[in-house]
Amino acid sequence: MAGKELLDERQEMGEGPWDPYTRDCPTRQVLDRIGDRWTVLIVGSLSGGTLRFSEIRKTVYGISQKMLTQTLRGLERDGLVTRTIYPQIPPKVEYQLTPAGATLVPLLGSLQEWAKEHMSVIIDARNEYDQSESA
Amino acid sequence: MAGKELLDERQEMGEGPWDPYTRDCPTRQVLDRIGDRWTVLIVGSLSGGTLRFSEIRKTVYGISQKMLTQTLRGLERDGLVTRTIYPQIPPKVEYQLTPAGATLVPLLGSLQEWAKEHMSVIIDARNEYDQSESA
Repeated sequence: MAGKELLDERQEMGEGPWDPYTRDCPTRQVLDRIGDRWTVLIVGSLSGGTLRFSEIRKTVYGISQKMLTQTLRGLERDGLVTRTIYPQIPPKVEYQLTPAGATLVPLLGSLQEWAKEHMSVIIDARNEYDQSESA
Repeated sequence: MAGKELLDERQEMGEGPWDPYTRDCPTRQVLDRIGDRWTVLIVGSLSGGTLRFSEIRKTVYGISQKMLTQTLRGLERDGLVTRTIYPQIPPKVEYQLTPAGATLVPLLGSLQEWAKEHMSVIIDARNEYDQSESA
């Protein structure tokens, strides 16, 4: 347990070492955030530049207003997206990736590409699995 | 709607084009699968080679038996992991990445690296956000 306590202490001091293979490491929450399907799509939509709420919602087709609000708030809290409010009537609110958020673009773009490239193979695998299960 | 129908038809034929920005595209489910924290950690644990269930469970510290079973089954169904049962007493069950599953290793490894590298910055951002919210 000495090793575990040392790890806890170093993590509390913000020094790491972070290790998502350990039980309570907060990097697991970060994985939840960045691997989330809506994060992947929202970060992708913002990779081209600043967008308004309604523009993101139009790009990420089918996302609910609540889910978009919630995901953007989480990304803002984590310092990955900035929200700028222009005091006009009606108020204009714009979202933009921070420099840290922008470093996610290639990573999450790769996930999208992987999903698109492997979709057909996955569908075939599922059909085969389901047939062998029901056999 | 003609465009949507064409997309549906081509997708049914397994030809794509797959686009996770469209509402019902199955690539969104694939994003859920590959971006999941347990998938990230399990695929990482299997990147070194074949492992038994209990070995994966020891590596991915804190995962419940149920969640590990469920995630491995999903990965097997999607053709990303193979399960081999050796008929002995007690039976030995081994898990291994398929070639398709192995292509995930660098991608999901990058997510882990990103999480570890940015953990401290994210904690700072959260503290700042929470303070400004309560102010």
